[in-house]
Amino acid sequence: MVILTLNCGSSSAKYQVYDWDNKEVMANGVVERIGIEGSCITHKAKGKKTEIESPCPTHKEAIELIIKEITDPEVGVIKSMDEIGAVGHRVLHGGEKFTKSVLITPEVLEGFREVVDLGPLHMPANIMGIEAAQKVMPNVPHSAIMDTAWHQTMPEETFQYAIPREWYEKYAARRYGFHGTSFLYTAKRAAVLLGKDPKDCNLIICHIGNGSSMCAVKNGVCYDTTMGITPLEGLVMGTRSGDLDPALPFYIMRKTGMSADEMDKALNKKCGCLGITGKYSDRRDIEIDAAKGDKLCQLSIEMEALRIKKYIGAFMAELGHVDAIVWTAGVGERGPITRMKACSGLENYGIKIDAQRNEWSFTGNAETYIHADDSKTKIFVIPTDEELVMTEDAYALMKGTYDVHTNFKYSFQDPNYVNKAREEGLKADLVKRPNIAKILARDIIGK
Amino acid sequence: MVILTLNCGSSSAKYQVYDWDNKEVMANGVVERIGIEGSCITHKAKGKKTEIESPCPTHKEAIELIIKEITDPEVGVIKSMDEIGAVGHRVLHGGEKFTKSVLITPEVLEGFREVVDLGPLHMPANIMGIEAAQKVMPNVPHSAIMDTAWHQTMPEETFQYAIPREWYEKYAARRYGFHGTSFLYTAKRAAVLLGKDPKDCNLIICHIGNGSSMCAVKNGVCYDTTMGITPLEGLVMGTRSGDLDPALPFYIMRKTGMSADEMDKALNKKCGCLGITGKYSDRRDIEIDAAKGDKLCQLSIEMEALRIKKYIGAFMAELGHVDAIVWTAGVGERGPITRMKACSGLENYGIKIDAQRNEWSFTGNAETYIHADDSKTKIFVIPTDEELVMTEDAYALMKGTYDVHTNFKYSFQDPNYVNKAREEGLKADLVKRPNIAKILARDIIGK
Repeated sequence: MVILTLNCGSSSAKYQVYDWDNKEVMANGVVERIGIEGSCITHKAKGKKTEIESPCPTHKEAIELIIKEITDPEVGVIKSMDEIGAVGHRVLHGGEKFTKSVLITPEVLEGFREVVDLGPLHMPANIMGIEAAQKVMPNVPHSAIMDTAWHQTMPEETFQYAIPREWYEKYAARRYGFHGTSFLYTAKRAAVLLGKDPKDCNLIICHIGNGSSMCAVKNGVCYDTTMGITPLEGLVMGTRSGDLDPALPFYIMRKTGMSADEMDKALNKKCGCLGITGKYSDRRDIEIDAAKGDKLCQLSIEMEALRIKKYIGAFMAELGHVDAIVWTAGVGERGPITRMKACSGLENYGIKIDAQRNEWSFTGNAETYIHADDSKTKIFVIPTDEELVMTEDAYALMKGTYDVHTNFKYSFQDPNYVNKAREEGLKADLVKRPNIAKILARDIIGK
Repeated sequence: MVILTLNCGSSSAKYQVYDWDNKEVMANGVVERIGIEGSCITHKAKGKKTEIESPCPTHKEAIELIIKEITDPEVGVIKSMDEIGAVGHRVLHGGEKFTKSVLITPEVLEGFREVVDLGPLHMPANIMGIEAAQKVMPNVPHSAIMDTAWHQTMPEETFQYAIPREWYEKYAARRYGFHGTSFLYTAKRAAVLLGKDPKDCNLIICHIGNGSSMCAVKNGVCYDTTMGITPLEGLVMGTRSGDLDPALPFYIMRKTGMSADEMDKALNKKCGCLGITGKYSDRRDIEIDAAKGDKLCQLSIEMEALRIKKYIGAFMAELGHVDAIVWTAGVGERGPITRMKACSGLENYGIKIDAQRNEWSFTGNAETYIHADDSKTKIFVIPTDEELVMTEDAYALMKGTYDVHTNFKYSFQDPNYVNKAREEGLKADLVKRPNIAKILARDIIGK
């Protein structure tokens, strides 16, 4: 049986086709420029990448295009749509209503429509994608996997803001948190690497990519997180400001005459690393210019790492005891400079990063540990796999075996689990950088 | 010789008259409702309090009223204005221009006018107060003591926001920090209590009052602080929100139709403890109702303490090693519940509060320590004295002996210094609560 996962953004639709029986990714890709001239699908399967331009005025055409590709006699991976057993949709915002993944019913869709205002950029696309996919695949169970669901275990003292109570009661203004599927995956994997039951683990997870957030995991569930009512709060991101004096936007609006909408957009699109450096949001570009002596690129690296370090400290204080710090996503998996700066100087608190191990770990394909042998708190790099969580949730919902993550066991919680999606890349990495083998996390399972 | 200090708010003017030779406060008080009907002065001297109504359409009349009171034959403390040797003015915002206290010249006043937009509520009043006082006391040297000056040692990675560079270069948008004189006083006192040179001290200072902020002190100078470009950022305060998702105000504006100005005001006046509880900003009221079972008051206490704890952690991480945590200002000096919640659960990081000592320390008059004997990091309660810093700066500027705090020695840096302003209160406290004697900080000097 095949599970299809879909992640519809405002002008894009990512997908993955997963062979459930062989536990393998068969194909994945993305349709870009939906609703814009020059729509294009990039499809990867059987070790080949194909790119085709095809008009997609709406998400419906995009999903039809995806289905055409995956059933194509040449580049496709299935013969007919009948092989698809379930579809999992990524949904940004579940508000307070959705605390775990769900089968999509008309009532569930109505629930998403109620929280569109909480995610005005993503939710309309998420809903359009679901509706389009349901039209094209009416006889398959569709499930929704929300970015916010993982965080619904937060207690009131961490999810409330110090604002008038009615802003919460009338308008649902509170901290929600995002990147939930990534935190779920890495938290469960960290428990395996620690040789512990997830409910016995206190973790600090750093999901650092273009968008970045961190999660304080207490006894296996989310206790606090850096993103807020929207994905703007917290860390310095590619183009998002993260934490600010809430009065700063109003000051700049008075000075420049910018409108509220313009400011909201600037905070999301023109700040973060891009704002600091004035030119780059991609950390690889920033690191290259920083090495050449660009002061603003150097500042961007320092500020991003320092913000992460401050949250490591904040979460340490909240948790009281930390079993492991986990790094994941683009920069987390392949950014030794940021990891080093954020984790150094914490020796007095039982956190000791190993410079050499950290430097060796930048593949994005292998689970590694980068702490010193005498570090009380472990430091792991765990490549995330959000699609796998979506796939397993969609499958279990279809089968009726699904439950909230604290009662559910994922395949990747097996000590012998190997992430096949990363396996090929890892083999190539090992040839190029044999040192990685020395620090592979699987060596320390159970220690 | 007598030193007068003035602190002009938008509709108030606080003052203190200090006898330099005897190192004693002679009088202090406040004019309230300046520019509003029913202006009134409350004057305290010679153990008596007097209240007089008198119209004060502007700060000029307020300052004349102050001078009338302090030279009054009955309730006054000096015979003539000639006894006043220097005047120290508290100024909210010195922008990036002022890194230490200064004698006020026309150029300095011009410098303050340039940063009025950074403190639109306070700066006009500060400037009016200076001009009015200069008119009434034209032959006395006037000095300005800025709330921001102490923080000008922050490095760029802690004072910059992740915003477009031009917002900093054109509009001076950056973290400034406030409560500088309080941090200066308590940092120097903490060094004395630690028996160390200030430059060898790493401290976390919690100035918790109606307005609250924290400071990370590295090698005796400010490294980071919780307030930002304005005093809105950071902790949960009496009526200010502190940290928020920067997108939250825009979301609420869309939902309610509030304007930018209305939102800016609400964030400063209707949030914080008042917003959470729906009724109180005063922590004493909140604690009483919390004890009676009011859930929102309980939540307010938890949220305020947790925010402080998160910043303790963040600053711990930034500093790498912390000699002492210092509590000061209203809640810091007299709020054992908040201190206990914020400092507990940090034992793994070398911070151990003593429940009994903490409970005993709520006088606001005595320097006490509240850590357990085996705590690596000390925890002090140090009643602040911002007026004394202003007084000493104003005196030294007049005498030409002033310098930036790292090169200057204040009277209160003497190991034998006793805060006379608090001495009478302390004696009364000791009669009421003899246990305090057991934990007086002076017993541990040099240990």
